[in-house]
Amino acid sequence: MSSSYGENIRLSIFGQSHSPAIGMTLEGIPAGEHIDFQELQRFMERRAPGRKDYSTARKEGDLPEFLSGVRGEFTCGAPLTAIIRNGDTRSKDYAAFSNLPRPGHADYTAQVKYFGYQDYAGGGHFSGRLTAPLCIAGGICLQILKRQGIEVISRIKSIGSVEDKGPLTVSTAARDFPTVDEAAGMAMQEAIREARMARDSLGGAVECAVLGLPAGLGDPIFGGMENRIAAIVFGIPAVKGIEFGAGFQAAKLRGSENNDSFVIEDGQVRTRSNNCGGILGGITDGMPLVFRAAIKPTPSIAMEQDSVDMVKLTEAKLTVGGRHDPCIVPRAVPCMEAAAAIAVYDALLGRRKELR
Amino acid sequence: MSSSYGENIRLSIFGQSHSPAIGMTLEGIPAGEHIDFQELQRFMERRAPGRKDYSTARKEGDLPEFLSGVRGEFTCGAPLTAIIRNGDTRSKDYAAFSNLPRPGHADYTAQVKYFGYQDYAGGGHFSGRLTAPLCIAGGICLQILKRQGIEVISRIKSIGSVEDKGPLTVSTAARDFPTVDEAAGMAMQEAIREARMARDSLGGAVECAVLGLPAGLGDPIFGGMENRIAAIVFGIPAVKGIEFGAGFQAAKLRGSENNDSFVIEDGQVRTRSNNCGGILGGITDGMPLVFRAAIKPTPSIAMEQDSVDMVKLTEAKLTVGGRHDPCIVPRAVPCMEAAAAIAVYDALLGRRKELR
Amino acid sequence: MSSSYGENIRLSIFGQSHSPAIGMTLEGIPAGEHIDFQELQRFMERRAPGRKDYSTARKEGDLPEFLSGVRGEFTCGAPLTAIIRNGDTRSKDYAAFSNLPRPGHADYTAQVKYFGYQDYAGGGHFSGRLTAPLCIAGGICLQILKRQGIEVISRIKSIGSVEDKGPLTVSTAARDFPTVDEAAGMAMQEAIREARMARDSLGGAVECAVLGLPAGLGDPIFGGMENRIAAIVFGIPAVKGIEFGAGFQAAKLRGSENNDSFVIEDGQVRTRSNNCGGILGGITDGMPLVFRAAIKPTPSIAMEQDSVDMVKLTEAKLTVGGRHDPCIVPRAVPCMEAAAAIAVYDALLGRRKELR
Amino acid sequence: MSSSYGENIRLSIFGQSHSPAIGMTLEGIPAGEHIDFQELQRFMERRAPGRKDYSTARKEGDLPEFLSGVRGEFTCGAPLTAIIRNGDTRSKDYAAFSNLPRPGHADYTAQVKYFGYQDYAGGGHFSGRLTAPLCIAGGICLQILKRQGIEVISRIKSIGSVEDKGPLTVSTAARDFPTVDEAAGMAMQEAIREARMARDSLGGAVECAVLGLPAGLGDPIFGGMENRIAAIVFGIPAVKGIEFGAGFQAAKLRGSENNDSFVIEDGQVRTRSNNCGGILGGITDGMPLVFRAAIKPTPSIAMEQDSVDMVKLTEAKLTVGGRHDPCIVPRAVPCMEAAAAIAVYDALLGRRKELR
Repeated sequence: MSSSYGENIRLSIFGQSHSPAIGMTLEGIPAGEHIDFQELQRFMERRAPGRKDYSTARKEGDLPEFLSGVRGEFTCGAPLTAIIRNGDTRSKDYAAFSNLPRPGHADYTAQVKYFGYQDYAGGGHFSGRLTAPLCIAGGICLQILKRQGIEVISRIKSIGSVEDKGPLTVSTAARDFPTVDEAAGMAMQEAIREARMARDSLGGAVECAVLGLPAGLGDPIFGGMENRIAAIVFGIPAVKGIEFGAGFQAAKLRGSENNDSFVIEDGQVRTRSNNCGGILGGITDGMPLVFRAAIKPTPSIAMEQDSVDMVKLTEAKLTVGGRHDPCIVPRAVPCMEAAAAIAVYDALLGRRKELR
Repeated sequence: MSSSYGENIRLSIFGQSHSPAIGMTLEGIPAGEHIDFQELQRFMERRAPGRKDYSTARKEGDLPEFLSGVRGEFTCGAPLTAIIRNGDTRSKDYAAFSNLPRPGHADYTAQVKYFGYQDYAGGGHFSGRLTAPLCIAGGICLQILKRQGIEVISRIKSIGSVEDKGPLTVSTAARDFPTVDEAAGMAMQEAIREARMARDSLGGAVECAVLGLPAGLGDPIFGGMENRIAAIVFGIPAVKGIEFGAGFQAAKLRGSENNDSFVIEDGQVRTRSNNCGGILGGITDGMPLVFRAAIKPTPSIAMEQDSVDMVKLTEAKLTVGGRHDPCIVPRAVPCMEAAAAIAVYDALLGRRKELR
Repeated sequence: MSSSYGENIRLSIFGQSHSPAIGMTLEGIPAGEHIDFQELQRFMERRAPGRKDYSTARKEGDLPEFLSGVRGEFTCGAPLTAIIRNGDTRSKDYAAFSNLPRPGHADYTAQVKYFGYQDYAGGGHFSGRLTAPLCIAGGICLQILKRQGIEVISRIKSIGSVEDKGPLTVSTAARDFPTVDEAAGMAMQEAIREARMARDSLGGAVECAVLGLPAGLGDPIFGGMENRIAAIVFGIPAVKGIEFGAGFQAAKLRGSENNDSFVIEDGQVRTRSNNCGGILGGITDGMPLVFRAAIKPTPSIAMEQDSVDMVKLTEAKLTVGGRHDPCIVPRAVPCMEAAAAIAVYDALLGRRKELR
Repeated sequence: MSSSYGENIRLSIFGQSHSPAIGMTLEGIPAGEHIDFQELQRFMERRAPGRKDYSTARKEGDLPEFLSGVRGEFTCGAPLTAIIRNGDTRSKDYAAFSNLPRPGHADYTAQVKYFGYQDYAGGGHFSGRLTAPLCIAGGICLQILKRQGIEVISRIKSIGSVEDKGPLTVSTAARDFPTVDEAAGMAMQEAIREARMARDSLGGAVECAVLGLPAGLGDPIFGGMENRIAAIVFGIPAVKGIEFGAGFQAAKLRGSENNDSFVIEDGQVRTRSNNCGGILGGITDGMPLVFRAAIKPTPSIAMEQDSVDMVKLTEAKLTVGGRHDPCIVPRAVPCMEAAAAIAVYDALLGRRKELR
């Protein structure tokens, strides 16, 4: 299967970029959880396109309609289903290159996998648009976690060669551009503008931290928090890497440098550093859970590219039209929070089974 | 749950470092697959400790006994279960610090998660020893894949600051030290020796490539090959990051640099470069599937460390005795092949359901 | 979880009796399967209420809208989602007894399970109305199976004390009242009319046979065809028992009577009798797969009943108003076919993984 | 897959009748649960063969060896694995008819499913012997449930045409022959002796009740207690039917007869009758959960039977040698308790996720 995630809750995402609607079903949310629909909408807007000049002009709206699972503003225990109608679509933009796969996109692999029956318009089920239902589910989980004292914060860690500065300790959600260091944010936006002018695109990295987590979440071996978070984060298109705590940098350290010494703080076991990213043996240790994801540059670029005709098996030139973000990293930030929230809430519910 | 992996096959790993046995059950392998037990044993030996001066001296033996699932040398369709008896164990080595968690290990998180009921000896279920059953399952999958023209190769990409050179295009399995460049391998071994002399340890990175894969494996969104491989690779202790293709480096490239142009080679669609690591939209594109995993330095080091008494909630000094690898990266190489083989074979069986 | 079924396909049902919509998501259907929407509609109508004087007068319409998963009339490989809007609802009918659980319904158990947050109107997620999305999924599977030479037929086996006569060998789908023996069908309809006049209701049994199945479907132990079919059939409200082949009658036979002798027919292995219902060791043997389900009488009856006030914890009288079938058995017939088709198709896809 | 069960715990059964061992892995049992190994052994002995003249003479012993998951007498949180060595086996008994499938057994379907690679000796993975690991898992769950005030009781409801009398309200576990009415038990034993003298066998029905269950367990639609229990009970070989509460009898009742009126008893909501078997809408209502399973007569009978040569595709006579129970119903009684306990405990853990 494919489009489902979770062990204690179950998220199922459906829809194609140009199908009548996209949406999600979320099973396993206990009855009686409050949903603040306005707060959910504000969260969704952080992902929405068309807000900025570095973002695609397509007006998605993204107003989720809840079909089931709620009574008033509270979950009723039944599966939650919410959909977003696909309104402003231009399928004809895509018809021209249905046989010419766009480099970096799933056009070619979808053609092979689905024998030509795939819905190629706008990338079909592979479209970045499918992160909207992810954000519906994640937005709900974020609200539930918040009531339990757990917060998910994130930022752009880098775009191209520009790095954000300082540690990630506060939410950047309210900022126009989600970096800790404002100057770094300005430089990133400038870099994006330059890439767009060059008919090109940029990638980057997003950093995410989950604060307020109790120790003891997650399971050994394949059920570790790293496994769980990676398994959902790679569901966000364009993610090509993930690391926890010191991550790839840890591979260059000595044990004496990388090990996080245990200390007592306020009568509680803590670690002096957090190279492990809050996870030991797959289980949370009560420190912030920290991870970073690498996001490749938007594959849709305005300049001409080399492709092939999949039917004739000949080489061909391709120019991708339509509207595309020169950099999707800013919009990936709330998606990363959504993914983290879903994985963490799933583990949190699993933890309840062990308590007596 | 925790210790299970897979959708079309189901791997379940059990055992603790010092329980009577460790083992695995593998469900879903079709009947009639041949198992070459000698080849399996040779594969297991690549993971076994005690072969080298950079490895722990514990003699594990690691001769798997098959309890079920085979008739002679062929799978019979029933679940395969194989165990390895835990012989040469020294539980008393661990009793001393059952209240003093070792930094970088799961001792503390296991204590919280299991309320003190965990089997702390040797790390219990969190022990690196549990990669032996992973290698039994992986070794079987590797043999099946090989008969279908699919090969998994890997190498040490780096240890500490020493990098292997050149591309990974051939198997290093037969080499004493699995690098492509022999000089780099010598330098790595020297670095490990130095770390051990300093009572310290080293981490590194492993690179893995799956060759001969058909295009069309994997599923969209959460069922992508990246999700599947990450979900199993993080089950290998000490892995703190994973990246596919250009990975974190892709985040620094422009779209025009990172996109892999399509070309026709021998009448087949191929890509000129392979920055995507053979995966587009989560689906294989027929190019080598390439990933790298970051492995943190062995947390067990001989020098004194800061810890806490988990019961008294006071700070304490800890010196880890016993036998420990100053660097587990060489032994992680076959584990990575095993993990990749299991994930790929699982996806391959899933692919059969779609064909008509 | 709850509202999901399947191993190789995954059906997820959502909605409440009076939520904006009900619907289903079906993952794992291979791309390129044709859907005849008119045939699907005709199948849905066999379940629809309001067609007959023995059925509730609520006009459901039940026109499924496909939100995703199709391109034209073919599946595109992405999850199929279809919804049915809830139009003609009268929530106020239910408000009166939100604290008075209706005997035989899930009102009380839902109150306990969901702490009063359940959507009580019309039975919420427990409503028989949720069999409409089951029939969407089942109707699609029936079409796919038919193209592979597999047919699902069924009939009313009994209503109250009236039994249908003769063996189930032909489809009753086209009949006004789905019995093999027309006289028995007339007597059943008369019994239903009498029950309604008495402000009461009737139960019955449905028999289902899957014809044209290959031998070798299903898995041992918990994956047997009996387990799989029972696990979905009990998802149809009011089902309280299931039996395969001779079923409960087999418990009264001797081994020499119950064993089905093997014979050769047209060069193929067959059994002389079919007491095992086409299943040996959980695996199909190539004979018709036969099962019967017991359906309790509609719990909603017009006469006054004893209930309790769940809040005050006092006893109370209850009269259920609204519109209700005096017998849901006729409408359960297509639901049973749907359930059987889903279970069989799921097993059929699983079988593909074993073939080489 | 096949040999796994459970959502919140995960039971995996492995082994063949004549493989080196049979066993089970049970994941998800919380750490700190006490296991009384002697009580477990006593429970296992109720299933063991060779105790009675109505049972096979094979000495199985059935002493489980725990390989993992425990520290002393307490679960440690890691997966529990226990095995039973296969000692007293006589594979040669079976070699003679490896091409002649025994009527009523899985020999033929296994041959088709596994293309001749199956382990045919003693029925392989389909053997009734595989209920021993089921009883290990069930025995552990029974102990845990008992500490929470939940008890599972059962009895033989019928053998051949002999019915047990009176309601099932007390445990029959300590009795030589598990019926409520002693005279009925004597008549059953006499019927079994007669069947054996006639070189024939008998089937029967087992009734099971779970007492002390809280209301609110189970999930709607496919997650109902009926679905869950049926999905495991059909994993016991020879079960061909299951019914809950009034079951198939409910199909003959009117709604006014079958509906269980709600009453207040000791300040709690109860029902006057229990035709629903303690389950409404799939969810427990706090009354005893009651079900009955139909068990076909032992297919292995001493008289000559009609079979076929699967290779030559010709008809052939078969006489099954070896040692076989003329009636397995008495041994099925503890298996049914085991199955019920596993399903109920799984649901109970799931319930914890919903509580706040």
